[in-house]
Amino acid sequence: MKSYSKKFFKFSCLTSFALLILLGVTSTTSHAGTPKYIFYFIGDGMANVQVHAAEAYLAALQGKDEVAGSQKAKLLAMSHFPVQGLSTTFANNRLITGSAAAGTALACGMKTNIGVISMNPDATRSYTTVAELAKAKGMKVGIVSSVSIDHATPAVFYAHQPSRSNYHEIAMALANSDFDYFAGGGFHDDETGTGNAIETAQANGFTYVKTRQALAAVTPGNRVIATDNFLMGGSALAYELDRVNAPETLPLISLAEFTSEGIRLLDNDNGFFMMVEGGKIDWACHANDARAAIDDTIAFDNAIREALNFYMLHPDDTLIVVTADHECGGQTIGFAGTAYDTFFEVLAKQQYSYEVFDEYYVVPYKENHNPAPADIDANMWALILEMFGLDGTGATADEWDDLTEYDKERLEAAFDKTMSGESVNLEEEDRLLYGSYEPLTVTLTHILNQKAGIAWTSYSHTGVPVPVLTIGNSSTLFDGFYDNTDIAKKIAEALGMPLLNVENASVVSSQSDTEI
Amino acid sequence: MKSYSKKFFKFSCLTSFALLILLGVTSTTSHAGTPKYIFYFIGDGMANVQVHAAEAYLAALQGKDEVAGSQKAKLLAMSHFPVQGLSTTFANNRLITGSAAAGTALACGMKTNIGVISMNPDATRSYTTVAELAKAKGMKVGIVSSVSIDHATPAVFYAHQPSRSNYHEIAMALANSDFDYFAGGGFHDDETGTGNAIETAQANGFTYVKTRQALAAVTPGNRVIATDNFLMGGSALAYELDRVNAPETLPLISLAEFTSEGIRLLDNDNGFFMMVEGGKIDWACHANDARAAIDDTIAFDNAIREALNFYMLHPDDTLIVVTADHECGGQTIGFAGTAYDTFFEVLAKQQYSYEVFDEYYVVPYKENHNPAPADIDANMWALILEMFGLDGTGATADEWDDLTEYDKERLEAAFDKTMSGESVNLEEEDRLLYGSYEPLTVTLTHILNQKAGIAWTSYSHTGVPVPVLTIGNSSTLFDGFYDNTDIAKKIAEALGMPLLNVENASVVSSQSDTEI
Repeated sequence: MKSYSKKFFKFSCLTSFALLILLGVTSTTSHAGTPKYIFYFIGDGMANVQVHAAEAYLAALQGKDEVAGSQKAKLLAMSHFPVQGLSTTFANNRLITGSAAAGTALACGMKTNIGVISMNPDATRSYTTVAELAKAKGMKVGIVSSVSIDHATPAVFYAHQPSRSNYHEIAMALANSDFDYFAGGGFHDDETGTGNAIETAQANGFTYVKTRQALAAVTPGNRVIATDNFLMGGSALAYELDRVNAPETLPLISLAEFTSEGIRLLDNDNGFFMMVEGGKIDWACHANDARAAIDDTIAFDNAIREALNFYMLHPDDTLIVVTADHECGGQTIGFAGTAYDTFFEVLAKQQYSYEVFDEYYVVPYKENHNPAPADIDANMWALILEMFGLDGTGATADEWDDLTEYDKERLEAAFDKTMSGESVNLEEEDRLLYGSYEPLTVTLTHILNQKAGIAWTSYSHTGVPVPVLTIGNSSTLFDGFYDNTDIAKKIAEALGMPLLNVENASVVSSQSDTEI
Repeated sequence: MKSYSKKFFKFSCLTSFALLILLGVTSTTSHAGTPKYIFYFIGDGMANVQVHAAEAYLAALQGKDEVAGSQKAKLLAMSHFPVQGLSTTFANNRLITGSAAAGTALACGMKTNIGVISMNPDATRSYTTVAELAKAKGMKVGIVSSVSIDHATPAVFYAHQPSRSNYHEIAMALANSDFDYFAGGGFHDDETGTGNAIETAQANGFTYVKTRQALAAVTPGNRVIATDNFLMGGSALAYELDRVNAPETLPLISLAEFTSEGIRLLDNDNGFFMMVEGGKIDWACHANDARAAIDDTIAFDNAIREALNFYMLHPDDTLIVVTADHECGGQTIGFAGTAYDTFFEVLAKQQYSYEVFDEYYVVPYKENHNPAPADIDANMWALILEMFGLDGTGATADEWDDLTEYDKERLEAAFDKTMSGESVNLEEEDRLLYGSYEPLTVTLTHILNQKAGIAWTSYSHTGVPVPVLTIGNSSTLFDGFYDNTDIAKKIAEALGMPLLNVENASVVSSQSDTEI
């Protein structure tokens, strides 16, 4: 994946969005009867800060002098949802949750321990999920994610496992499920061999496709597992930033396309339930890469717009719920160095995610510079300017992109760490500076983010509440401030089929050391 | 104010809170007719993170093993409000707002520039405030704040000035206003002289009181300016942490008391409008002092409980709106060093706010150690242990309180800066580490906060959205995600008296350099 153009984000669904405004759907209305179509969007790692950072970035691209006016526009579709609740996220055994425990709460309405997939805290009993409830009601069910389809958030809807790391068992649960559509990323393990998930799924009647064309050729009535031939680390879809900037020879499938194909394949007289996860917002925030997180939030919003297009055709029968499992990275819109100012437009200078920069630029550079130069050399300064728009040598006539002496010191120290290839997690200061990420790369995203006015406090999830945004049939159930377990209960209530999960009398243990 | 005891926070209004739960007021209800009593609570610098940090701290005090259960309890009254909206905060000319511009939006429903008090952006026209609207309707009006009563947030309700720094003009507007109750902090300038605000106010019929006893002696029907004899920096009330731990010889008046006295004095057949600001949540967050911010959030919530007590007597006629003008400090619940764990209970070790530590401990220490020791000496280590519970010498048998080598390095560097008395704002790294605060003190709160799992990214406000929590008559108007200008419009709508403010055709200027 080489740099070949400087495309910026395109407002891919502006027409539908304008239509949404014209239709005046922002009034608060609920409807009698149960919703026939339920969309459950989960932005992994997406709290209010992540949503608002994406909107502030889009506003900044429209010109700084119109801050007020453009901010007023609320540039993401989800911000126009009429009902906005707030949810706590804690796990059974930890204030700061993980995706398995949070997902179990969102899918089953029950607390569980860190790492457990839709079972009770001591993993002796399975919980029923709202997706299983919908299936039992005769609705078709789809599960879509931008990360691997056996990852914790998608898994909690169809699998029941003591550990999210039981990837093969989770994949086999998928293969043997009676759901209708699995789409997005691939499988964590190789599941193509005899007796493994893909073969089992095909024997069970699933069609397995890996291209846009093959997916488009599937006709409604078929059960499908759909992914993309080209996947990045963890068998996930590429970051949206990398997808948009990928060569034209690599026409990657977007989360919005997997969502719209899901609607096409799932639509039937008995209705459907579809869960769509924006899974890499979280991963980008773990890595403290604001631009990658923003673009994946926009990609997630584009998937939501597909659901909104469908909603506009079936306003009385559709419920759309958008929420998150937790915040990630401790992101804020404000940095000590920029104080009261923000310059989000500088983020547009970043060409690719930290992941592509690591894999396609840092790795080859290390291979070609052995032994490593003592300081950052001209080649690396040029690469930093091209990839992140940061000027360490006065190469450009601009001033905004100049690195300060302090920035250069930080970069030189990180460069040394990266080139040494040593583990950086031994020293406390290194752990705070770099987490488990490539020191040079995470220092570059930190500096660019800070120039924008964005800062981070962690490489892990955090404990702040997350938004719950809803529109359509039964949406008024979701007003107020409640717990993440209540969201699944409200969806079940909307379905007219209460969740009957009961926790057994397990002892709540003290804080877990597991970092997931 | 010397250390004399180790009192912890007391749940001062638990009975009323339990009553609130019993009454089941968490159902979403609105009522016909306009509210006769309106409470407008503004937590300065209080976004969702500040609220949730306070709840997580109260939960931690109840025992770490009950994280899930105690979190479920939602330990602040405001979290039980049935309608929860979300609001953007940007100013006319800056994404990250200031208290004057945000206050003008909250009071008048109009955007203005940074620093302007209830006038249009170029300060050529005054805006009508909702408090003036209420007065015009015949309601009594009260303005309460924990900071000086001429500070930006209280001022926007009764004054109209091109600059929030026009303290004397603002005080004179107060003295000449037809409002009924001003209470909390004092005046920024000395306003006691001939022709100044206090004398003018008294000539206009205001009673001026400075003690709990004198305030209690005022009978309804009198107009009152009430403050406390003992005020801290900026003529503000002491931080709640310092108020609770103050000697018994210094019985400081709480924000909740100023609120309940306001209710007593304002209650009448024509109803009342009362604005109550929790102003020092913001100041504590500027200083990155989590414990001070948490205790002031609890003090603010205690004031809200006084309004809830009143609400329970007049549920059909009362509207309570709780919101914030902006976030401050970029606070998060999650730190790279503590990753997925939190230990909020360690915050209980802090005895006083950064302000009292600076003024009553650091200043005398500097005077008594001239020339300064090269390193932190035994006296200072003992003080750090006593005041913040942090052990730099292995003095205690505990492990949790031990400072790491990295912590000690940071403290030694900060100690040198503090003892040198030099300005620390010249070097970029110093500005990031200390802001404009005493280096030793802010490093101590940083380290203690980080041990708890709380981190900060700024010494300024940030641009994240803030909560809008409402209960009572017309509360359902406040659902959804909207702009801070909409809050004042909704209150006016509830009053049945639309705000008719119109911005003149001023040019929106680019980002301001003013840091307020």
